[in-house]
Amino acid sequence: MSDCLFCRLVAGELPAQKVHEDAYTLAFRDLHPQAPTHLLVIPKRHIGGFAELTAADGPLLGHLAAAANTAAQEAGLAEGGYRVVCNQGRDAGQTVPHLHWHVLGGRPLAWPPG
Amino acid sequence: MSDCLFCRLVAGELPAQKVHEDAYTLAFRDLHPQAPTHLLVIPKRHIGGFAELTAADGPLLGHLAAAANTAAQEAGLAEGGYRVVCNQGRDAGQTVPHLHWHVLGGRPLAWPPG
Repeated sequence: MSDCLFCRLVAGELPAQKVHEDAYTLAFRDLHPQAPTHLLVIPKRHIGGFAELTAADGPLLGHLAAAANTAAQEAGLAEGGYRVVCNQGRDAGQTVPHLHWHVLGGRPLAWPPG
Repeated sequence: MSDCLFCRLVAGELPAQKVHEDAYTLAFRDLHPQAPTHLLVIPKRHIGGFAELTAADGPLLGHLAAAANTAAQEAGLAEGGYRVVCNQGRDAGQTVPHLHWHVLGGRPLAWPPG
């Protein structure tokens, strides 16, 4: 059994409010939403964070972007827009060491982004 | 001559404080920094925004992620971390209709991200 929270979620060992799933990615609702719509989009394969990504991860990133867009559209964010956020490390407040993209929308989002 | 601000920047028709450049991407300092380090990473090819991305853009996304990581490391953010942000549309405050990733670091970044 993995120690990684999101790997366990992918494996079905922990529950999630899934909104989209394909062979490479999973999208689900954040447990502590910061906007009317707040989703997390993750790769099923374990990647510790953004800093580990290289050009070789391109295909996976394409699937992540497509999944984020599909989930955002299905959540009704296509017209109003949305913010995609990825936290790498301490200063950004990364809490789970498995790559995840936050997708937030449904209200005007302020600037700066934190 | 393109009407797109970032396409003109890529073409060298407008100045930029470049920090990284390769065949596919350009990274430069944001003119209105919101953190001690605030970079923009863009594809040289015109893409209007995140919502236009599909799985077919994977290779480009791999280059963007690698460029963002290289620029963040060269800016000294490897240890402290950084936040990567992409604004799609009105509610997110997207101001330039050419895909760009904000990379912010050098201070603790608050939550929510806007």
